[in-house]
Amino acid sequence: MDRQLLYEGKAKKIYQSDTNENHLILSYKNDATAFNGEKKAQFTGKGRLNNEISSLLFQALENKGIPSHFIKRLDSTTQIVQKTDIIPLEVVIRNIATGSITKRLGIEEKTPFDPALAELFYKDDSLGDPLINDEHALYLTDVTGEELTDMKEKARKVNQALTAIFAAIGVRLVDFKLEFGKNKDGEILLSDEVSPDTCRLWDIETNERLDKDVFRQGTGDLITVYEEIFNRLEAQL
Amino acid sequence: MDRQLLYEGKAKKIYQSDTNENHLILSYKNDATAFNGEKKAQFTGKGRLNNEISSLLFQALENKGIPSHFIKRLDSTTQIVQKTDIIPLEVVIRNIATGSITKRLGIEEKTPFDPALAELFYKDDSLGDPLINDEHALYLTDVTGEELTDMKEKARKVNQALTAIFAAIGVRLVDFKLEFGKNKDGEILLSDEVSPDTCRLWDIETNERLDKDVFRQGTGDLITVYEEIFNRLEAQL
Ligand SMILES: Nc1ncnc2c1ncn2[C@@H]1O[C@H](COP(=O)(O)OP(=O)(O)O)[C@@H](O)[C@H]1O
Ligand SMILES: Nc1ncnc2c1ncn2[C@@H]1O[C@H](COP(=O)(O)OP(=O)(O)O)[C@@H](O)[C@H]1O
Ligand SMILES: [Mg+2]
Ligand SMILES: [Mg+2]
Repeated sequence: MDRQLLYEGKAKKIYQSDTNENHLILSYKNDATAFNGEKKAQFTGKGRLNNEISSLLFQALENKGIPSHFIKRLDSTTQIVQKTDIIPLEVVIRNIATGSITKRLGIEEKTPFDPALAELFYKDDSLGDPLINDEHALYLTDVTGEELTDMKEKARKVNQALTAIFAAIGVRLVDFKLEFGKNKDGEILLSDEVSPDTCRLWDIETNERLDKDVFRQGTGDLITVYEEIFNRLEAQL
Repeated sequence: MDRQLLYEGKAKKIYQSDTNENHLILSYKNDATAFNGEKKAQFTGKGRLNNEISSLLFQALENKGIPSHFIKRLDSTTQIVQKTDIIPLEVVIRNIATGSITKRLGIEEKTPFDPALAELFYKDDSLGDPLINDEHALYLTDVTGEELTDMKEKARKVNQALTAIFAAIGVRLVDFKLEFGKNKDGEILLSDEVSPDTCRLWDIETNERLDKDVFRQGTGDLITVYEEIFNRLEAQL
């Protein structure tokens, strides 16, 4: 197929669909990056696993009444999505303190947040995706205050839904990052991916890390744990 | 006098008033610190100038209907204030981009913000006073959402008032940091200080820095510029 490559990111290639101008094809890559691209590696099978996992999760969210850009899985490494105008904000929801927030704010590892904490980061690699507040977001992007509220509410709904989905497979949803975009109708739509690259997932029984932290921290085999998440999800969903 | 020293900070000593248990005596020191205490020096006259300037400014704010902890100037380096339970948040209001925000968010120096940007920092030297969002503030401190809104509204009123006060003496109020505390009646009250240590002040004509940046950046004599601010304020107020 002669697809036009629109953009290559760290984890995915984005192609224009040749049958619908409002559709894109997301092709998940085998690359893993961490620490704003400083640590890099390739893992055969990663693109497939993330495509399968995010396809299953977007479908499960849809079934729970949470729409996203996801249209359908195309093949093992690609999916068709609605084209959106990505808002350059990362919405992070934290159920349990781990990673950057513990050092940044002096919060002890594994402290639960109830209600979950929402954070915004400005999606800009050259600035290292800095933490921002709502006023920064309004200044730096085109979103309105209402849209920002909408994004955060949607992120909290995703949190509820994903928490239940993962609990059903014996996994604790510790935190995750979402991206939103505006579709052609101006609607704010959950976009990008939901995968072990973008979620922290701990086995409920053993606390084993089943996400990209095994790569970040060099504490385990990425493919083994992503495969574990995929197998459990596939058996459940 | 046999005052009890309650606390010594980087810029002030706090004594218990011996005549009123709800009053404190703030004694302004000659120390200047920057970059979270990494750069330090002493300037004879600084304590006097900051006490005089903040006394004049708190009084001027009061005259414009903005109450604060300030009760009265006691002598050249001290003032009497209401004791408050300080909320460990720094409220920063920015009218013009300069300093940390330009690097943090890639915003060009001297970009005006309209409306002014409000930022919260968690007052914790060991963490380097990190930028936080509202949800962090609710998690990390005892403030409620309503109190946070109240603090930000008060900070914006202070901005309007101070902008006018400084404009009248040919000075542009670029940005500033406020602290709030709860007094014995549970009221959120502007506390701490308002001085060239905590405000960025640029001469409207020449853009000359008339604040602690001359010390931070080693570009001028601190006492000369603080004296300039004091003289202009005293002539005007
Ligand atoms: N539905 C969509 N429409 C347009 N762009 C999207 C959509 N979903 C995700 N993207 C964007 O695709 C790009 C590639 O993804 P990725 O490789 O994860 O990039 P990054 O290096 O920014 O993490 C990202 O900029 C992401 O925001
Ligand atoms: N009205 C007040 N009641 C109680 N504490 C106050 C009041 N105003 C200011 N403070 C506190 O006095 C302390 C000393 O001030 P300062 O030397 O500027 O401290 P810092 O080193 O934290 O900047 C600070 O912790 C400040 O928050
Ligand atoms: Mg990405
Ligand atoms: Mg201080």
